[in-house]
Amino acid sequence: MIILGIDPGTQVTGFGVVMLTKSKLTYVDSGIIELSNKWSLFQKLEKIYDSIVDLVELHKPTECAIENIFYSQNVNSALKLGHARGAAILGALHHNLKVAEYSPKEMKMAVVGNGNAAKEQVQFMVKQILNLKLEMTLDESDGLGLAICHAHRLGSPRASVKSWTAFIKMHPERVKK
Amino acid sequence: MIILGIDPGTQVTGFGVVMLTKSKLTYVDSGIIELSNKWSLFQKLEKIYDSIVDLVELHKPTECAIENIFYSQNVNSALKLGHARGAAILGALHHNLKVAEYSPKEMKMAVVGNGNAAKEQVQFMVKQILNLKLEMTLDESDGLGLAICHAHRLGSPRASVKSWTAFIKMHPERVKK
Repeated sequence: MIILGIDPGTQVTGFGVVMLTKSKLTYVDSGIIELSNKWSLFQKLEKIYDSIVDLVELHKPTECAIENIFYSQNVNSALKLGHARGAAILGALHHNLKVAEYSPKEMKMAVVGNGNAAKEQVQFMVKQILNLKLEMTLDESDGLGLAICHAHRLGSPRASVKSWTAFIKMHPERVKK
Repeated sequence: MIILGIDPGTQVTGFGVVMLTKSKLTYVDSGIIELSNKWSLFQKLEKIYDSIVDLVELHKPTECAIENIFYSQNVNSALKLGHARGAAILGALHHNLKVAEYSPKEMKMAVVGNGNAAKEQVQFMVKQILNLKLEMTLDESDGLGLAICHAHRLGSPRASVKSWTAFIKMHPERVKK
């Protein structure tokens, strides 16, 4: 399964792509989508949407993890960020990806084990988990962190079911006979 | 020329479609896109995008006027509104519409002649201008108001050029010989 992680922003959107096979995670791709300050809002929205579509067509992910945001410096930057995030989500939805949202805290808990970890700690752990020696920006490692966070949730089905009965129903092969 | 006006919102998005022929404005369509509170953000974004695409395919507008927003109750509602607005803009851009933004003040100035007019005054004037007797919601008349505002700008080329020289260059037929 290929997972695309997106850390949306109005200037830089970080992304990371990982492959989950059984419980093994492998690095596939990562990078940033840069938006020029000279561009109109319309050009920025199209750039984000088109870049996400390009990534989806290139790597064929079936799952997408995007950062959920509850705060912003002010109303104006929140409005702008909402536009960018909406464009990224539509790019993924239009290619039938399942989209999940994670707060920065959830991502940091999954990757570092500490919801208040610094971005540098996230990057350090992302590199450890994926056995990477690449240089990367903090937006890029946040994108990978989101993909890893989603992989963790998918890899631990107990977290997504409400009872042992439901878990056994979903995974009959796990019952010792 | 067909103009689509959009007043985006996180619960209700109003729209209005008018036809501009020379300096005559004719009503084509108007209505609201309603979003249920029970829907996920993803469902809401797809609903807005798909509804705009449906309207574009139905009426074949070439121009779109969308409300520009600079304020919101708080950061959280600004984020949500940004998502909705981004989805509406992408729906229009993906069908090659030219998109223009107008603040509520600009729209009210164009329709009522008073930037601080109430929504009810906008509705009254929209009905007068388009010779309508329909019952409509205030979101719907705001959508029509935006389309009318854009028609006014297109109909008064002097506002879009910076000097008489530029105006004469654009409209040589207006020079008395």
